[in-house]
Amino acid sequence: MTAEGIAKDASSAFSVLKTLSDSQRSGALNKIYDSLKKNKEQILERNQIDMDNAKSNNLSTSLIKRLDLSNPGKFDTMLQGILDVAKLEDPVGKVSLQRKLDEGLNLYRVSSPIGVLLIIFESRPEVIANITALAIKSGNCAILKGGKESYETFKIMSDIVNRTLQDETEVPSSAIQLIQTREDVNDLLSQDKYIDLVIPRGSNELVRNIKSNTKIPVLGHADGICSIYVDEEADLTKASRIIVDSKTNYPAGCNAVEQLLIHHSINQESIVKIIKSLIEAKVNVHVEPQVKQMIENEPEIDLQYVFDTIDDSFDKEYLSFDISVKFVESVEDAIKHINIHSSKHTESIITENKDTANKFLKAIDSAGVYWNCSTRFADGFRYGFGTEVGISTNKIHARGPVGLEGLMTYQYQLKGDGHIVGDYVGGGGKKLFVHEDI
Amino acid sequence: MTAEGIAKDASSAFSVLKTLSDSQRSGALNKIYDSLKKNKEQILERNQIDMDNAKSNNLSTSLIKRLDLSNPGKFDTMLQGILDVAKLEDPVGKVSLQRKLDEGLNLYRVSSPIGVLLIIFESRPEVIANITALAIKSGNCAILKGGKESYETFKIMSDIVNRTLQDETEVPSSAIQLIQTREDVNDLLSQDKYIDLVIPRGSNELVRNIKSNTKIPVLGHADGICSIYVDEEADLTKASRIIVDSKTNYPAGCNAVEQLLIHHSINQESIVKIIKSLIEAKVNVHVEPQVKQMIENEPEIDLQYVFDTIDDSFDKEYLSFDISVKFVESVEDAIKHINIHSSKHTESIITENKDTANKFLKAIDSAGVYWNCSTRFADGFRYGFGTEVGISTNKIHARGPVGLEGLMTYQYQLKGDGHIVGDYVGGGGKKLFVHEDI
Repeated sequence: MTAEGIAKDASSAFSVLKTLSDSQRSGALNKIYDSLKKNKEQILERNQIDMDNAKSNNLSTSLIKRLDLSNPGKFDTMLQGILDVAKLEDPVGKVSLQRKLDEGLNLYRVSSPIGVLLIIFESRPEVIANITALAIKSGNCAILKGGKESYETFKIMSDIVNRTLQDETEVPSSAIQLIQTREDVNDLLSQDKYIDLVIPRGSNELVRNIKSNTKIPVLGHADGICSIYVDEEADLTKASRIIVDSKTNYPAGCNAVEQLLIHHSINQESIVKIIKSLIEAKVNVHVEPQVKQMIENEPEIDLQYVFDTIDDSFDKEYLSFDISVKFVESVEDAIKHINIHSSKHTESIITENKDTANKFLKAIDSAGVYWNCSTRFADGFRYGFGTEVGISTNKIHARGPVGLEGLMTYQYQLKGDGHIVGDYVGGGGKKLFVHEDI
Repeated sequence: MTAEGIAKDASSAFSVLKTLSDSQRSGALNKIYDSLKKNKEQILERNQIDMDNAKSNNLSTSLIKRLDLSNPGKFDTMLQGILDVAKLEDPVGKVSLQRKLDEGLNLYRVSSPIGVLLIIFESRPEVIANITALAIKSGNCAILKGGKESYETFKIMSDIVNRTLQDETEVPSSAIQLIQTREDVNDLLSQDKYIDLVIPRGSNELVRNIKSNTKIPVLGHADGICSIYVDEEADLTKASRIIVDSKTNYPAGCNAVEQLLIHHSINQESIVKIIKSLIEAKVNVHVEPQVKQMIENEPEIDLQYVFDTIDDSFDKEYLSFDISVKFVESVEDAIKHINIHSSKHTESIITENKDTANKFLKAIDSAGVYWNCSTRFADGFRYGFGTEVGISTNKIHARGPVGLEGLMTYQYQLKGDGHIVGDYVGGGGKKLFVHEDI
């Protein structure tokens, strides 16, 4: 089928899916759970083919591990995820404004699904179950494109999902469509008439490439350049723990810290201690000359971990055991640096001074603004969203870790009884609006 | 200055404006009010130059009338608008989520301004006062580009605004910048690093052109193709009044109805009555063959107002005394037609049957879904938003008539006391999250 055909089918399916009740949508998820469970052996056989191909193509051990659905507990965890989403509160139809405009003329703002989502992800096979569940639960249609390494696994799972929807539920089977080639993706990215939101889940390069090739809004983040500022009134024990956690807990995460700004008036001993704690955790510190000067003659500092900063040291995401370090003059100086250099993901201040903290929280223009805690908390599960659609560095629509809410929009319902504008002031008449919240 | 310079200056100004209190922001609006009031004569002199130029360039009377700030009451109304915005509730810092993640670790979702807005509008000079007020009140910076017909008026007003901000307020003067040439606009549309949202206020062509020339999110609507569906259980007196109001109250408005779908089983006499009411209001009806057949031999129908539909009759915005008319088989058929052909602005159903109405309200995928009332109600003032930033047909961020809320986003504040992820389950530790709303 052409990209336009796929997108059009999804759009028609949306017209139906949008009208279904929560019990119809969640019921469909239970049916999908049953079918996937019943076909576990078949799915694992196909998964084995992906694994064999990956091995004969010499893919990395970590990638092969991600592909593997036969790890103890992994398949069942994936299935349990479907039931967990089914049990979430219905996000559709929540009323966020009710207003009487006039006698018998009432306005309601009601949450509704966005429409057609194009979701592009890499090779973890369990993602297909997760996304299918989130999309159907929220009343959205999804076009899915997974990494080619998991092709066999995705294929059998989406066949089972489509067959189940078709035979056993009111959800149209084209509400969930799997596509296969890279060409298809490029064609789909131009279907802005039918596709409402693109959600890429994968490498920075993937996201950046998608952002520059479509007019459809993209929910996600290309970079996670997070910062920590250590204020002159910081508790330095907290500082070291937070910095080391932010950097080393999972350096490949978008919420790992990439740059460290230190107030210049902190004493040498404390600065050496902070740097030493990073080096002991095997982090390469990329330092500006003033910082280097302060630490290079300290016997406690292992200089094989110390590097000079270069031109882009404060504009890059390392995603590794590396961090850029510089001095700043003041909290204002730190704010200015961060608002220019960060990717507007998450920034943290370490200070015992509440006023300084509030100044930082108010001035920083990032999705997450933290005080005395690790940047690694920027995560939908840690925020208690139950599930995570992604983390957004956009400034409009959803921002930061995005739960099911990020897949919702709203509509205004206006219910009248023959009301016309010509009767009201501003429209040619004399009647006045009441505008009373109900 | 280069486009990049302008955008960068606005972005730095935002770092300051974002930290100001409501009294500082609203106080600045009061100062602007005073300065514009004091300089009324000078502004009107400049406005006269624009008027003279417009006359010597033979611009249309309606355009010249829009330019004229000397009409009785117009200047004072414009100024009063600034005070009205200053008095609105502060949209910044509203907390929409408060959650305890663990002892001493609390998450807050707080409303905050978006950042830098690029606002492109046509020639009504009062818009500059309105936008300046909305931007400063909401803590956003604005780069303004007005139609060249009002150049002299815009220039003196923005000079006064900048001088006032500089001399008398804490708002940086580059929070509001006026730019002048069309080249500048094209260059600014590529500054997606510094500009967060484009708001075009003007013709469909302007909006369409901007949407296809920028990666920055655009808040607005290119088309307003609104529909009315007359159900078989409609009260036909209400139907006629609503249809005529929706079409003729202000045909150039984006919320005017452009297509009329009529249930095929409504009797001939009633259909003739509906069409006749449109023709009596001097509306050209563009009808499908089945409709034509039903009305063409009726003596009451003035055939000079009757036209055959053509290929794009149901995919266009007339913005004039014209409407396309067709029969549909059922409410489902109407829904299907509308979800394919409408621009997702506003659609209305006329019926006395509540179930049919609810089916329509639930299935239609437009910003406004109406029951027994005129599409012309789709308007920020009629909704009681106090002020209107624009009407959006986007499906993400703000939808439908947009008030001050549409200029806001949110940030997550996380306040801890040395908390690190490594202590928690999922991050390598054993602690559990509390996730308790506070």
